[in-house]
Parts: sequence; C-alpha cells; structure tokens
Amino acid sequence: MLKIRFYLALFLLPILLFSCNETTNNTEATKENITQDNPTEKPYAIVIHGGAGAMKPEMMTDSLEKAYKQTLEQAVKAGHKILESGGDAIDAVTTSINILENSPLFNAGKGAVLTHDGTAELDASIMVGKDRDAGAVAGVTRVKNPILLAKAVMENSPHVMLSGKGAEEFAMDNGIKLVDPSYFLTERRKEALEKVLQNEVTPNNSSASVDLDTSDYKFGTVGCVALDKHGNIVAGTSTGGMTNKRWGRIGDSPIIGAGTYADNETCGISATGWGEFFIRGVVAHDIAARMRYGNESLADAAKQVIQTDIPEMGGDGGIVAIDKNGEIIMEFNTLGMYRASINKHGETHVAIYKD
Amino acid sequence: MLKIRFYLALFLLPILLFSCNETTNNTEATKENITQDNPTEKPYAIVIHGGAGAMKPEMMTDSLEKAYKQTLEQAVKAGHKILESGGDAIDAVTTSINILENSPLFNAGKGAVLTHDGTAELDASIMVGKDRDAGAVAGVTRVKNPILLAKAVMENSPHVMLSGKGAEEFAMDNGIKLVDPSYFLTERRKEALEKVLQNEVTPNNSSASVDLDTSDYKFGTVGCVALDKHGNIVAGTSTGGMTNKRWGRIGDSPIIGAGTYADNETCGISATGWGEFFIRGVVAHDIAARMRYGNESLADAAKQVIQTDIPEMGGDGGIVAIDKNGEIIMEFNTLGMYRASINKHGETHVAIYKD
Repeated sequence: MLKIRFYLALFLLPILLFSCNETTNNTEATKENITQDNPTEKPYAIVIHGGAGAMKPEMMTDSLEKAYKQTLEQAVKAGHKILESGGDAIDAVTTSINILENSPLFNAGKGAVLTHDGTAELDASIMVGKDRDAGAVAGVTRVKNPILLAKAVMENSPHVMLSGKGAEEFAMDNGIKLVDPSYFLTERRKEALEKVLQNEVTPNNSSASVDLDTSDYKFGTVGCVALDKHGNIVAGTSTGGMTNKRWGRIGDSPIIGAGTYADNETCGISATGWGEFFIRGVVAHDIAARMRYGNESLADAAKQVIQTDIPEMGGDGGIVAIDKNGEIIMEFNTLGMYRASINKHGETHVAIYKD
Repeated sequence: MLKIRFYLALFLLPILLFSCNETTNNTEATKENITQDNPTEKPYAIVIHGGAGAMKPEMMTDSLEKAYKQTLEQAVKAGHKILESGGDAIDAVTTSINILENSPLFNAGKGAVLTHDGTAELDASIMVGKDRDAGAVAGVTRVKNPILLAKAVMENSPHVMLSGKGAEEFAMDNGIKLVDPSYFLTERRKEALEKVLQNEVTPNNSSASVDLDTSDYKFGTVGCVALDKHGNIVAGTSTGGMTNKRWGRIGDSPIIGAGTYADNETCGISATGWGEFFIRGVVAHDIAARMRYGNESLADAAKQVIQTDIPEMGGDGGIVAIDKNGEIIMEFNTLGMYRASINKHGETHVAIYKD
C-alpha cells in the first residue's frame, strides 16, 4: 500500500511540476524570451529508449509492464537530475544508459541477448554535439557498462572506434569495470536463444507462439539523448545486438551516423531496430542532414525516415531525438518502443505502446 | 625500348579513343540525347584511389613513381574493361580493388600497414547504389582480399558488417581465400612500424626525417567507385588502417556512410584519410546528403566537406566519387592522392600530386 502511494506520488510529481511551469510561463513566446535573456534558463530535456519491437499489451503481464516503466522512469529521472543541476549532457546520457544496462530487462549490459555461440557481444557508442567528438566499441564480452567504455574511447584515445579483445585491453588500462562473461548469461536470454535455434532447425514450425523474446530477437537496444543547459546535445546507444547473431556481427548501435549521431546545429539521435537497415540508411545522420540541408523540422525528418524510407527498404525500428530547441521526438514503425522523456517544461512521459 | 613503346601506346590509346568520341559527338547536348535514346549508350565511368597523404615529388624516386602509376593504371583499366563490355559495377569495383590489394605498394591487402602488435588487421566495405545494399568487414587478419569478403557478406549473409575471427569463419564457409598472416608482413611495413614505435619512445626526436611510410602513417587506403551502363553506382574501400594502431581500432573504411557510400539518386563515394575525422563527419553520406537535400553538385558538396568541414575539425584526407551522370570528382586536402580515372568520354587520368 505504501509502495502504491509512493509510485502515485512519483507519477503525480511531474504533473504538479508542470502545472507550476504553466502558471509562471503563460505563453511559449514569453518562455522563449526568458530563455534568450537568461542563459541559465536555457531549455534542457532528455529522452531514452529501451528498444522497439512487436510488443503487444496481451503479451505483457502487469508486473512486467510495471517493471519496464519503473526502470525507464528511474533512468530518465536520473539523467534529468544532472541536467537540472546544470550538469553536462554527457553525464546525463551515461547515467541514464547505465541504469538501463544494469537492468536485466533490456538488451544491453546485464540483459544483453546471446550470440549463436551463447555468449554476449556488446556494442555501444556516444557522440557529443558541441564538437562532434565520438567514441564507440564493438564486440566486447567482459565490459559491464559498454557506454562508459565508449566515453573513455572518446576522451582518452586518439581513436573513435575500438573492437573486441583490443577494446577490452583499453578498458583495463582506463579503469573501466570488467566482469566475467557469465555475468551476462541470464536465464531469460538463454531460453530466448534456445527457442531461436530450435526455430532455425524447424523453420516451418507453425506452432511457434509469439514471444516477447523470440518474435523480435533483433530489438531491445537502449539509448539516450540529452540537451543540457549549456546548449550541448549528446546521444548514446548501447546494445547486445541480435539474439543468435554470428560471425562477429556489428549492428548499427556502435556506428556513428547510423545508430548514434549528435550535432548542436541540428539534433541528437539514438536509434533502435533492425540494425542492418539502419546502417544502410545511415539513419541518424540522414535525419540530421534533412534538417541541416533540407530545412526540415526534426519531426518531419524523423517521420520520413522511420515511417517511409526504412520500411521501403524492408526494415523496422525507431529513434529518439532532441533538437537544439529542446523538442523531443520518439518515432517508431513497430508496435511499440520502450521509451521515456522529460521535456523542456519538466513533463515526464513513460510509454511502451503507441500513444 | 619495346617496353617504353608499349607504355607509350597504352598512354596514347585513351587519347585516340577520346578524339574519336569528340568527332562523333559534337556537343554535350547531342551526347545526352543519344544517351537517353539508346540505353546501351548510357554513361559509364570509373575512379580509384590508393590513399591520400603528404607525399612530395622529392620524396619519390622515378622508379617508385612509375610503379605507383603503372599499378593505378592497370587497376582502373581492369575495372573499366568490365564496364565497357556491359558488366556490373560491383565486378568493376572488386576487380580494380583486388589489383590494388594484391600490390605491396598500397595500404590494403598485401601492402597493409602493421598494427602496434606487428600484425595486419584489415577492413573493407562495399555499397551498391541501386538498392543501397552493403557489406563490410573489420579486423580480419587472414583474408587475402577483404573487398571480396565484404561483397560476400553483402550477398550471402543477413548482416551488413562482420568482424574479427567471426568474419574469418564466414570467409571460410563462403570460399573466400585465406592466407597465413605472415603474407602481409612486408619488409617495408615492418620498417615503417619500427620507425613509428621509435618515435613514440623519443617523441622530441627532431632529427626524424620525412618519410613516405612514417610521416603519413594513417593513410594509404584504396578505393574505387564505378558507374555501369545500367545506371548502377557502386563504391568500395579496403585498408590496413593506421600503422601502429591498437586496441582493435576500426577506422572509416568499413563504416557505411563514413568511408563508403553509394546511392544511384546521388553518387558513389570512397574516402581515404584520417579515419577518425571521417567517421565523426560521416563524410561519404554527408556529401551525398548535401546533393540530395541541398541540391548541391557533387563537385560543390565534395569541396565543402573535404576543403572546409574536415580541416575545421582537424582532419585531412580525400575522396573519389562519381555522380549519376558519370561526373568524376577527386577531392583531397593533402599534398597528394594516388588516383586514376577513366571518365565517360573514355579519357584516362593517372596522378599523384595536385594537378
């Protein structure tokens, strides 16, 4: 009972906060003026995703849905708190992603799906809009929080992208926490792999039931985009890739321009979906380029790429993004996308299915 | 003497061919009409590069310069022959790149530079403009021609990008030629690595002489873009990366959007240069996006990105590209770029330094 009251309070808090905002700022124009006059009042906002896929309400138990939403809310609030106190968007992004990586619910860090060989191979990337600096790692098997390694690559190496055992050597030299590969072997992911492998052997198995873990074995990546009070936009993405992936497959998550992109002149973007199509479509950069060269709004650019271009190629998935004015976009062409945001008015939004 | 005559003939051949073209097609407009009326007369063209860098005439012996130019000419002509006979741009690109990969002169395949650990780690990618299909490999150590593995990934796997040992397993399953890692250990590259390592130990060594291999230890990638008679543009890139690279570093060459991009609506591009900046700038896709959304010409877009944007970030390098009309662009901000092309009029151009 106490717990319910606590969550009710958590749920009501942003509504209360927002009402306060509304009373003090009567019109958007007034708010913009304040923003321009007082640099400390510059807009700040944050958005996260926990993967897009074919999730349906009837496939989800109440307790599982609650667990997803709780973790999403916890992650987005942790990042927002940093922004609120004038912190750096880099810290907001890594803090939020760390919470998602440490949860077994999402396909990143602890909850990473398993490769064909039954191991976890993790990818991550981060990009800073201020100077378009970036860091990425691919195919690491012992790094607890790959997003922190991506950040270290960006800050402490002359390179942008490191891979495999070499990336883990770099992690060791840079004080990044390593774990035994068994840390990633959750029962849920082992079962998911077994089911996919079984379906491979009997591809015409019509009795295969729809399952959160196996029907969408390519989804579940996590990501975050944040705009801080200093006008800096940062985007980050972290993933375990696809269940049953083979041959050292690298998806779009660690690819700057495909799964992650940030440029203060346009927007920051983190993608989730069928990585092969997101690489071929250079999705994150394509949305930013439509804004930069075609003068499209973030909303229009994201809609065109996610609802038309990627489906036309045969792919699916979604993105979360924030533009330089703090506008948040969460666009996906799948049945659902785990997502949460706190916009520039302080409003919190947590959702799984289409609104 | 016979040899000189042979090369003289080789050199004069395209000039003769071009004169014939000129007499039969009086104006560009007439040519365009013919092109539109007769699909077999559609423009076709090819361009290759063997890396951009700080090469100067005084650093090059006559015989070395001749060897570079000879191999470039051989490679571009082999690809052009395929286009001329109505072949596919995919085959033209892989054929040209194979010749550069098999030469010890270029930093790809046989001539790949060595990593910090004294081994070769090869990257490559290919993209087809027709459907924006793509394949890429990163960090392979035993694949003789990485561009053929990238093509196999594109054609025979559900993935776009494979890496490391997993990619080599895939190579074995797909009949791609593997060699012993020692195949790549040329004396020239071993010496280059030793010099760089020596400079690391004594960074203030002011007596370090400028050297083709060590002054530009990040350059030398090879690449090719071809437009075939069917209107299909294909781009491919292959590299050994940077001398003394560590931690499983992946550069721009295997990154779709950074080192390689092709889209029949705009152009095909292969890049060479300081990979970290080309990844952050999403260079190949950025040039195509400027054309697509900003209506810039390929020449203007390439000039802006290579001469302004990348230098402003602190990077250097170059690109070769062909647009859908068969226009060839070779843009670089370094002292030189090994390059060769045969344009839609059949004119051959082979060069190292600025024209």
